[in-house]
Amino acid sequence: MSLDNSVNGTTSSTVLNSSFLKAIVQQIRGQDTYGVYRNWSDELILKPYVVTKQKKREISVEGEVDPITQARIMGFYRAVAACIEQETGLISQVVVDLSHEGFGWVLVFSGRLLLVARTLRDAHRFGFDSLEKVAEEGVKLIEKGVDLAKRFPEVGKL
Amino acid sequence: MSLDNSVNGTTSSTVLNSSFLKAIVQQIRGQDTYGVYRNWSDELILKPYVVTKQKKREISVEGEVDPITQARIMGFYRAVAACIEQETGLISQVVVDLSHEGFGWVLVFSGRLLLVARTLRDAHRFGFDSLEKVAEEGVKLIEKGVDLAKRFPEVGKL
Repeated sequence: MSLDNSVNGTTSSTVLNSSFLKAIVQQIRGQDTYGVYRNWSDELILKPYVVTKQKKREISVEGEVDPITQARIMGFYRAVAACIEQETGLISQVVVDLSHEGFGWVLVFSGRLLLVARTLRDAHRFGFDSLEKVAEEGVKLIEKGVDLAKRFPEVGKL
Repeated sequence: MSLDNSVNGTTSSTVLNSSFLKAIVQQIRGQDTYGVYRNWSDELILKPYVVTKQKKREISVEGEVDPITQARIMGFYRAVAACIEQETGLISQVVVDLSHEGFGWVLVFSGRLLLVARTLRDAHRFGFDSLEKVAEEGVKLIEKGVDLAKRFPEVGKL
């Protein structure tokens, strides 16, 4: 693992302090019934979220999205939901609906309000250029969700 | 087919005039790329939506929900969406997310507004006691959706 970390020498420790990235790690550790990740560093847990353009090209988009990728997608959006909850108090549901071809929807909702509504395509390749990008995307979604929750509190609490 | 119709002698022609049931038939005929249902009566097309309690007990809830049942569920909720659209002008998306155990969510949304949000369980057994019940349930969901759309037009159009 230390080898893994040193190879990826570009990760600054600053980005690991991102509260969104911490929320992802928390989601993954929280689902870790068998203790697989118990001794893993946060950085190592987050690593699969970095999928470079080069790597993406190498991943086939044929067939079903494998369970590990599905779990990665879930972890990301559950973290978004958790961060929105922290700011607004709204407890939300995350629904990921993927067709066999990796197309689909991600919906995060509270009451009758959709806090996040995104279409996915090529979900097999879900990932970002860098951890900074992961954090950036997450924060964007959280801000939008929090904004909606504040604008339409009545709908969020239905 | 005429045999089938005559066996099920209890269906009154009145219920077949329900605009919701007509909307279901329209959905199914609209998806009928291969013309399977071309010569079927509306009644015959609607028949699989009637699943008596007795029949439900006979359907196993093990394993995946088969594609035909999934299509039946989709047809029902797409018809709900179409009827809401007719009354409100809001075009909506239907997302059905079923786990392998037949649990899941059905969501119908427009903009950031959830017009229908239902949990499903034992989806393998999706159906109703009678066609009257199908129509009744549909109308209930439509009324609720239309009501929400009218109360929160801004959210529905986001």
